[in-house]
Amino acid sequence: MSILVVGSVAFDTLKTPFGVREKIMGGSATYFSLSASFFTSVRVVAVVGDDYTPEHEAVLTSRGIDTLGIEHASGKTFHWGGEYGENVNEAKTNFTDLNVFENFQPKIPDSYANTKYLFLGNIQPDLQLDVRRKMPKVAMVGADTMNLWINIARPALMETLKEVDILLINDGEAKLLASENSLVLAARKVLAMGPRTVVIKHGEYGATIFFGDGTHPFRAPALPIAEVHDPTGAGDSFAGGFMGYIASQPKLTPTVLKHAMFYGGVMGSFTVERFGPERLIELTREEIEERFKVFRSLTHLD
Amino acid sequence: MSILVVGSVAFDTLKTPFGVREKIMGGSATYFSLSASFFTSVRVVAVVGDDYTPEHEAVLTSRGIDTLGIEHASGKTFHWGGEYGENVNEAKTNFTDLNVFENFQPKIPDSYANTKYLFLGNIQPDLQLDVRRKMPKVAMVGADTMNLWINIARPALMETLKEVDILLINDGEAKLLASENSLVLAARKVLAMGPRTVVIKHGEYGATIFFGDGTHPFRAPALPIAEVHDPTGAGDSFAGGFMGYIASQPKLTPTVLKHAMFYGGVMGSFTVERFGPERLIELTREEIEERFKVFRSLTHLD
Repeated sequence: MSILVVGSVAFDTLKTPFGVREKIMGGSATYFSLSASFFTSVRVVAVVGDDYTPEHEAVLTSRGIDTLGIEHASGKTFHWGGEYGENVNEAKTNFTDLNVFENFQPKIPDSYANTKYLFLGNIQPDLQLDVRRKMPKVAMVGADTMNLWINIARPALMETLKEVDILLINDGEAKLLASENSLVLAARKVLAMGPRTVVIKHGEYGATIFFGDGTHPFRAPALPIAEVHDPTGAGDSFAGGFMGYIASQPKLTPTVLKHAMFYGGVMGSFTVERFGPERLIELTREEIEERFKVFRSLTHLD
Repeated sequence: MSILVVGSVAFDTLKTPFGVREKIMGGSATYFSLSASFFTSVRVVAVVGDDYTPEHEAVLTSRGIDTLGIEHASGKTFHWGGEYGENVNEAKTNFTDLNVFENFQPKIPDSYANTKYLFLGNIQPDLQLDVRRKMPKVAMVGADTMNLWINIARPALMETLKEVDILLINDGEAKLLASENSLVLAARKVLAMGPRTVVIKHGEYGATIFFGDGTHPFRAPALPIAEVHDPTGAGDSFAGGFMGYIASQPKLTPTVLKHAMFYGGVMGSFTVERFGPERLIELTREEIEERFKVFRSLTHLD
């Protein structure tokens, strides 16, 4: 089944201990769609500027991604500049040029109306809710958010969460959103805000999925990686693998969700091996299945 | 097979968000031996003072622990005072009264000479090495250490590590010991210092075992716990479950080590549910097996 992602398509200028890159492809919808494209058909709603060339778009379309929903506006594409030091878990933002993204009004092509799965990437909660309401027939809605929206747009975010099935956030975001230091209590509070399920990502320690119906939580590992070349997009790649796998399955069962957690971790582990989406672009499904086996051997007793 | 632990037997005066306790039983050897006693026979080498009563010792002997190696010296028992705030991963020390522990010279009873497994609890590396050399015939040596010894006794610690098979430390200790920010690279450097195997504990995120022979690492989860009442002794309880399970098995195989990682996590998860060793004292093997199943369902796909 197809999945629609709304989010940012951007350029990133990055510096990590392993090198620098100028104006490479980035943004939540880029990472999400590339990652999900290994599992299912993907449709993108985003906005780009004049500097987003046919060659950039071809990186997505060559993976079968439907880019009809990428609006080309007059002006420049969203451009983020940042760097990571020895602690790759903390990004330092050097600049955030919103450009055409500042006035982004998501437009959903008619041909996207029948999409079964929806992922609301990390954009303003107002826009997330707008898109979600324009897609009343979707079977499942996933969403991401960030500290910025929790801090400056909490009321809008709370409205959005009421109409989200699965929220994917990291430890810090969960604790901030719930005003709660314990991860388990934070998960419970977030579940009370609307989502039936919450996936909390722990960076290099993996991720835990918590259920609102009392089902036991489930933990997926992250791969112990010696050298994280660039952590940008790891969370969106996780979301793409997670949601993409779910969308590829005939039915949403607990077993499917567990496997989706593993595929999320697998996709994140590939992304951080190289800069930007470089590794995702050259990846094969065979490599994904190989790494899935590594994740299994990393955690399974027998 | 039996296991010998050398470490501290102490009193703790604790404050956590869940309450306070005055002068309760504590110390690395107390937690380790109680935890390991569910799996194998345990012998303790430690020192206590006049205020350590037969009733205290009976808590250990009633679990079948051999306390012949607990020396009764004139003076007071080691007494630690500390507290934990909202972040239970950080202890604030209020006082450290070493008392009789200050001049601790481990003495190994003759009847302990045939012990097959040895665990060097978190004491001065000089003493760890002394005990290790007094037990040349042991099949396997595990050890713990802490930031204090890494900082003030590094040369002695490096000598000790050369004669240790498995080192169990936490993230921060591994990074400090290896002067390395990446956990995987830190593990590799620690393995180069002597141990064939290193277990790095990630607190609420579980633990990873790294092997010097190139075998893939293995990750055990920690239980998602809503309310950690008292984190004191969680690491020593992990070590007790880990080493105790190994000592209970006829042969050390990769499968045994994986199960040992799970049992370590299981024992740590019980300890933090209550204050001090309260939970360990009333625990049953049936409860341990029940929780082992929960750990399995937390991580296993099928």
